[in-house]
Amino acid sequence: MAAAEFWYEFASTYSYPAAMRAASLAKARAVELTWRPFLLGPIFVANGWRDSPFNIYPAKGRYMWRDLERICDALDLPLRRPDPFPQNSLLAARVALTLDGEERVEFSRRVYAAEFGEGLPIADRATLAILLAKLGLDPGGVFARAEDGANKARLKAESARAAELGIIGAPCLVTEDGEVFWGNDRLEQGLDWAASQRA
Amino acid sequence: MAAAEFWYEFASTYSYPAAMRAASLAKARAVELTWRPFLLGPIFVANGWRDSPFNIYPAKGRYMWRDLERICDALDLPLRRPDPFPQNSLLAARVALTLDGEERVEFSRRVYAAEFGEGLPIADRATLAILLAKLGLDPGGVFARAEDGANKARLKAESARAAELGIIGAPCLVTEDGEVFWGNDRLEQGLDWAASQRA
Repeated sequence: MAAAEFWYEFASTYSYPAAMRAASLAKARAVELTWRPFLLGPIFVANGWRDSPFNIYPAKGRYMWRDLERICDALDLPLRRPDPFPQNSLLAARVALTLDGEERVEFSRRVYAAEFGEGLPIADRATLAILLAKLGLDPGGVFARAEDGANKARLKAESARAAELGIIGAPCLVTEDGEVFWGNDRLEQGLDWAASQRA
Repeated sequence: MAAAEFWYEFASTYSYPAAMRAASLAKARAVELTWRPFLLGPIFVANGWRDSPFNIYPAKGRYMWRDLERICDALDLPLRRPDPFPQNSLLAARVALTLDGEERVEFSRRVYAAEFGEGLPIADRATLAILLAKLGLDPGGVFARAEDGANKARLKAESARAAELGIIGAPCLVTEDGEVFWGNDRLEQGLDWAASQRA
């Protein structure tokens, strides 16, 4: 089966529609998708950005919010702007990394739905605890594993790996031959590429 | 007939495939397209950028060139990286602005083909003179009109208008109701939007 990696950052706006679309688009092409949460922060800091470029460059931010609104309208996805933006995504990313397979996928989608569909604060432990409980998981146990030193180090390594791969934003679709497709609008192209590698 | 504006910058890489696709995509949707050359420089300077962001942020530049390569491969468009990048696009933009209708469209497409298809220096008067002559135009006369004070002022006004519209990069498709669609990858969406305004 063809395979690809879906790299996403919970603070990233365009990762929201991508996370909602990725699984079905991959299934339609028989591409096995590995979901890889990471932090964009270190990559942005390397560019000298201490905030989201959508805040640093206000015209870019205005464009992005309108563009995202049109995208969500077309997909019939609710959109609420979280405040503050960007949300601190550290705990959500650590939690996602402790979960495997479908649990990670489902948790991640629910984080995006809470953050950008309902405008809930995903930096708050309480928000994530409710999502975990709804998945039948024990929030206390999950948080303990998420904040274990080994898991923290693993997330750092994932972010370093993202930079090595040439990832400069989120979401990104990365194929087995190392091609990087950046953006919600490149999902189909990246998955088509992955599917074409099957032979 | 539905209408839209195609805003483009001759130094912009993604404007190349967009310029090659725009006319046929617009025709297929019965959208009348006005081609509006402008300069991104003033908009970039307002962001504090004195060079292309693809040069300022090397990882972003590496991604863009590979992305563009894939896009051009898929469209069967030749791609040669002009040196230096970005090319100074001032004269080409001034010339394009003096031409009307199909002449502007054809000149603009030929500038992109020379610059990114053949790697020719479009900042050189000689390169543009050859393109103008091939269109049956008198290069000397066109350059004189291009460098007339009124035309220079007109180009400045076009770039100021672009910023007012919320344009933050090139190419952009702008619809009659003021929606801005940024990027070669938003052409179809923008033209669909324009077509839907017909009623």
